[in-house]
Amino acid sequence: MKIDGIPYRSIWLKDDGWSVGIIDQTRLPHEFRIERLTTLGDAAHAIKAMLVRGAPLIGATAAYGICLGLRADTGDAALENMSETLIATRPTAVNLRWAIRAMRELLLPLSEAERVSAAYEKAAQICDEDVAINSAIGDHGLEVFRQIWEAKGKTGKLNILTHCNAGWLATVDWGTALSPIYKAHDAGIPVHVWVDETRPRNQGAHLTCWELGKHGVDHTLIVDNVGGHLMQHGLVDLCITGTDRTTAAGDVCNKVGTYLKALAAKDNNVPFYVALPGPTIDWEFEDGVKDIPIEIRDGHEVDYIQGLDRTGAVSEVRILPEESGSANYAFDVTPARLVTGLITERGVAEASKEGLARLYGQSVYKAS
Amino acid sequence: MKIDGIPYRSIWLKDDGWSVGIIDQTRLPHEFRIERLTTLGDAAHAIKAMLVRGAPLIGATAAYGICLGLRADTGDAALENMSETLIATRPTAVNLRWAIRAMRELLLPLSEAERVSAAYEKAAQICDEDVAINSAIGDHGLEVFRQIWEAKGKTGKLNILTHCNAGWLATVDWGTALSPIYKAHDAGIPVHVWVDETRPRNQGAHLTCWELGKHGVDHTLIVDNVGGHLMQHGLVDLCITGTDRTTAAGDVCNKVGTYLKALAAKDNNVPFYVALPGPTIDWEFEDGVKDIPIEIRDGHEVDYIQGLDRTGAVSEVRILPEESGSANYAFDVTPARLVTGLITERGVAEASKEGLARLYGQSVYKAS
Repeated sequence: MKIDGIPYRSIWLKDDGWSVGIIDQTRLPHEFRIERLTTLGDAAHAIKAMLVRGAPLIGATAAYGICLGLRADTGDAALENMSETLIATRPTAVNLRWAIRAMRELLLPLSEAERVSAAYEKAAQICDEDVAINSAIGDHGLEVFRQIWEAKGKTGKLNILTHCNAGWLATVDWGTALSPIYKAHDAGIPVHVWVDETRPRNQGAHLTCWELGKHGVDHTLIVDNVGGHLMQHGLVDLCITGTDRTTAAGDVCNKVGTYLKALAAKDNNVPFYVALPGPTIDWEFEDGVKDIPIEIRDGHEVDYIQGLDRTGAVSEVRILPEESGSANYAFDVTPARLVTGLITERGVAEASKEGLARLYGQSVYKAS
Repeated sequence: MKIDGIPYRSIWLKDDGWSVGIIDQTRLPHEFRIERLTTLGDAAHAIKAMLVRGAPLIGATAAYGICLGLRADTGDAALENMSETLIATRPTAVNLRWAIRAMRELLLPLSEAERVSAAYEKAAQICDEDVAINSAIGDHGLEVFRQIWEAKGKTGKLNILTHCNAGWLATVDWGTALSPIYKAHDAGIPVHVWVDETRPRNQGAHLTCWELGKHGVDHTLIVDNVGGHLMQHGLVDLCITGTDRTTAAGDVCNKVGTYLKALAAKDNNVPFYVALPGPTIDWEFEDGVKDIPIEIRDGHEVDYIQGLDRTGAVSEVRILPEESGSANYAFDVTPARLVTGLITERGVAEASKEGLARLYGQSVYKAS
């Protein structure tokens, strides 16, 4: 999407034809800094230190990491070492493993001479496929938005609430939950987005506000506590979020707090949509609340908040009293009964086993 | 309650018999500083700059402010001026107006010579009455807690979730929502409190954590997004909050985000209690969502977060991108259908017109 009128992706091949550009997302929103990756080590650091985040972007960065590594050594042993180095950066990231496996399966059978160019081609393909999937999610979502906008009599703004960051910064481009928002904006529907701050890491305040603002989409930051009040007063026309993991029955695991917004949406008859690429559906699980293990992260994210201090530097302040402790549950599960629909690259599915089975043959993804 | 073993109230007459001690709550939790009020101006500043906050404590501070002002001038004109000065500090605070009216009605008919001692007596009485009301709320709440603890088979901890700060720091002592927690703790029930951070002002992190910790009550800070997840997993035995305003039908207006927790409690069959002194019931209103106007405060509270910086100073960081805007809705309304019971100084009422009418004759409070 655009930054001050200039189109960007979150990762790209630089004009030299081999080094890789990324945006240092740890500096956003207060500083826009582009980093140039030239080695495998650069790529591994970018993933580990979260200069890049979001499952698809991590996968794409790992793929380009292999390209950069192969420029130094095209041998089998080197390729194995690179894979291990990259997987160790974020051991639980599914897309990271998937991208590295795809690269290895393609490259190992090739001669060393062919590997570098084949790797760059595959990395570019991984990026383009992600963009195509997210663009398709946006197109299907746009139709949903258009219907709601028409049912509203096309008056005022189309008010959309979102939680966390499922935008283009988390993917290669378009994003998932924000993709239909960009499509609607570009199609001339006057959207206005209520952006949940999304404690503890504040991805809403730091990333969603920034990317919407830079593309020119009207938006307002709210604290995570406010959405229910807005819905009680007719100030939200629909909610849309992303998801880290969706069960075969349509339960949605996403950034903690998503469940609370879905409850408020249900209580006020506000449609609650979740946008996702098909490959993130976990066909093995059905009952998300029971089956999906929830990551408990370090309390530092709860105890400290990052922002711009009075000297203009990005720094942290501690909010926790010295003698208190904290707990940092990172995700929650929204039961399918609270989800109006799942917006995928193949269309909009009812959040149920039947709904998802209609769009996807389970076997397609079980085999992959 | 206690601070490191020493009993405190949030406002008290100093040993000199005339000046007034308060805790500077803007410094908490990072600095414990006692301020001595010696003039009307000191009291007005303490209210306006929010060194003291919470409806009952504001009222008590205003009452002592009149005492301090009368020491300089006991005349009628002076008394009128003092009243106006104090009311102007927080123009919408109901308790403030109530306390000042009570002082004026008592003092104006008296001779100037009698006024100072009568004022100190009345101020002390206002404080003691608040303590008595909150202690009674605690006693009734303790019985509720005891039943839930017994139903749980007295195993593990009694896990209680609370939002914002309705503790002794917001009143003269005991607090409202936290009063039964202190009573339960003191009675030997092993309570553990999940403390919602409570953005935007973080009263949970800053005040509730601090006062629970100083009294020795086990507690854990969580971000506002987490409560639903905890309830889904059986980690909350009950919720309890305070309220700024309760309608005759039992709808509860409290710090924004309370409604979301009440929805999650309902969805997971977790009891949701609200603690309140009878005088905060607004007998004129029934439908809280429709009738209660919600204050929209300055966005600064959303855009900036206060904490301890790396130099050990209390300072603010900005979380909002430069080009974005924010909205700061301060309260929301939880419909009575989501409230298990209202814990008052007269006992526990069903959250309904009938339930409240059974405890209070409407006329009692309509007349006041």
